[in-house]
Amino acid sequence: MSDTTSRTELSALGEFGLIERLASSIQLQHASSVKGIGDDAAVIDPEGLQQVVTTDMLLEGVHFDLGYVPLKHLGYKSIVVNLSDVYAMNATPRQVTVALGLSNRFPVEAVDELYEGMLLACKNYGVDLVGGDTCSSRSGLVIGVTAIGAAKAEDIVYRNGAKDNELLVVSGDLGGAYMGLQILEREKAVFTETGSQPDLAGHDYILERQLKPEARKDIIELLRKLEVKPTSMIDISDGLASEALHLARASGLGVRIYDEKLPIDPSTYSTARDFNLDPSTCALNGGEDYELLFTIAQSDFDKIKGNPSLTVIGHMCDVANGYFLVNKEGGLHALTAQGWDAFLKRG
Amino acid sequence: MSDTTSRTELSALGEFGLIERLASSIQLQHASSVKGIGDDAAVIDPEGLQQVVTTDMLLEGVHFDLGYVPLKHLGYKSIVVNLSDVYAMNATPRQVTVALGLSNRFPVEAVDELYEGMLLACKNYGVDLVGGDTCSSRSGLVIGVTAIGAAKAEDIVYRNGAKDNELLVVSGDLGGAYMGLQILEREKAVFTETGSQPDLAGHDYILERQLKPEARKDIIELLRKLEVKPTSMIDISDGLASEALHLARASGLGVRIYDEKLPIDPSTYSTARDFNLDPSTCALNGGEDYELLFTIAQSDFDKIKGNPSLTVIGHMCDVANGYFLVNKEGGLHALTAQGWDAFLKRG
Repeated sequence: MSDTTSRTELSALGEFGLIERLASSIQLQHASSVKGIGDDAAVIDPEGLQQVVTTDMLLEGVHFDLGYVPLKHLGYKSIVVNLSDVYAMNATPRQVTVALGLSNRFPVEAVDELYEGMLLACKNYGVDLVGGDTCSSRSGLVIGVTAIGAAKAEDIVYRNGAKDNELLVVSGDLGGAYMGLQILEREKAVFTETGSQPDLAGHDYILERQLKPEARKDIIELLRKLEVKPTSMIDISDGLASEALHLARASGLGVRIYDEKLPIDPSTYSTARDFNLDPSTCALNGGEDYELLFTIAQSDFDKIKGNPSLTVIGHMCDVANGYFLVNKEGGLHALTAQGWDAFLKRG
Repeated sequence: MSDTTSRTELSALGEFGLIERLASSIQLQHASSVKGIGDDAAVIDPEGLQQVVTTDMLLEGVHFDLGYVPLKHLGYKSIVVNLSDVYAMNATPRQVTVALGLSNRFPVEAVDELYEGMLLACKNYGVDLVGGDTCSSRSGLVIGVTAIGAAKAEDIVYRNGAKDNELLVVSGDLGGAYMGLQILEREKAVFTETGSQPDLAGHDYILERQLKPEARKDIIELLRKLEVKPTSMIDISDGLASEALHLARASGLGVRIYDEKLPIDPSTYSTARDFNLDPSTCALNGGEDYELLFTIAQSDFDKIKGNPSLTVIGHMCDVANGYFLVNKEGGLHALTAQGWDAFLKRG
């Protein structure tokens, strides 16, 4: 779709032309997507299932920096982060809507690239783009995505279902997306100061974790196959510490996380060391990993034991015992949530 | 909720504090709202009905000017414009999600005012605020609203169901919101130049049309009572001409609108004259009226005849006859759509 040699002004196409251009490239896949783009609203057939709805907003200069994020990746990621929330409910995403605020500095070709990434994510996850809104923005790119999923009522997993002594499990590894961001920001600073081309060699894994994260559809499917239903679940967008606190507080419990159990990829570890950062801190507070954090009954441990995608990192405890990270020597460090402040520092 | 004498920085509350503050003020009304704010996603029980989903984005400096729009009104309007889309599908809105991008110049009290307006709209229309996202913005206020409604599959009205010779009907009156905006912009300019306080006296109706529009829930209920099911329907956000074209094109038809039939309030009419604007042009292209435009079979005419809230303004015709406004003398003027360009001129 994209052609870097040409530039077509958005005003040449107009709002309706842009919507038509987008709509024409979409084929609805789900029988549940009764009506997509082109009416006042999309229409969805729930097919007897409950509906799960989540919304996220991504703002230029806060959530992403177009200085180093390709538009196609940004489009992909903007869909994936919402699907991740749907999976965290143990539901299957089926539809998304996209609201875009575009400034005049974006040509039609740039919008095409953005949508190319969005539609690739939709294809990879089997989701229909059914609606949206396109408007002009005076201050950078604004992306709003709403994802809608479906699940049987009895399959939905909330944050508040954890029980005392249950195991705390995380998928994949942590801290990679954050270290990828550090690399990108360092190279951007070097480029700004010296004009040198960025040196990103050897950092493929953590750069991909930052630029093109995936939602853990596979983990939801794996747990179903293993016949393990988590008792509580959340996705890791703000960092493990923050999300573990959400699960614990929603369930009226305390939590213990063991430092030495934290799954950290070797490339995350070595990059953290290069930046003089503590790898565990990056895993706990880095954010944007989009892994799943969940609790299971101890009786389910044998079903997940030894699976390379799943790591037991701790357990729930009585609320009176508080929220702590336990180091190798058994020392306790209070877990603290990061939210807004971390947000402001990013991007 | 608001207290203009105090100012609490958003950073003092933090992202999670702000979400908790909001969540604590919400009581879910619908049995279909299974889970509201506080998990990865909201959960909705469709109760055997189809789901209708629509998203809109409002950007500071494009869709609103905080120089003359009170935050409470803005919150109210941001919900209402989305509900209007749900009614335009002949569905009943039941849930909304809200994504907010906030810059540091907004204190907590300002956010409270915005939500106060949103929650008032939710209350007035019987809708639950079930989820959202709050993030920091570096460039003004960004509001993203997604509304979800429900209807029996057979009750949903699309844009594409109009038939040849059917009557084109509009609710309420047109052009008022646009003239309200002209008044606000004139008084803002006077204030900027001279420091004089705005003189808004005598313009209550058109100012309310601009600042605090209502979605035509009452019209949907009226049509049900009258046992009239529109064959196609759309809400008027971009102006009558643009929306009539949408209905005609989606239905594969042409359309005739009669100038002398356009419902224009006397205050809209006289203000247009004061501004040397053609009242009909304001009604056709002004936008933001949030009235409903729909087609009905000629056999339904007797059921709506004489109702002060409904005006037959034209009829559908063969596509070969095109899309025209007919003036008193029978002269034809081509209807043209406004979209993006009008957008850029507004605000």
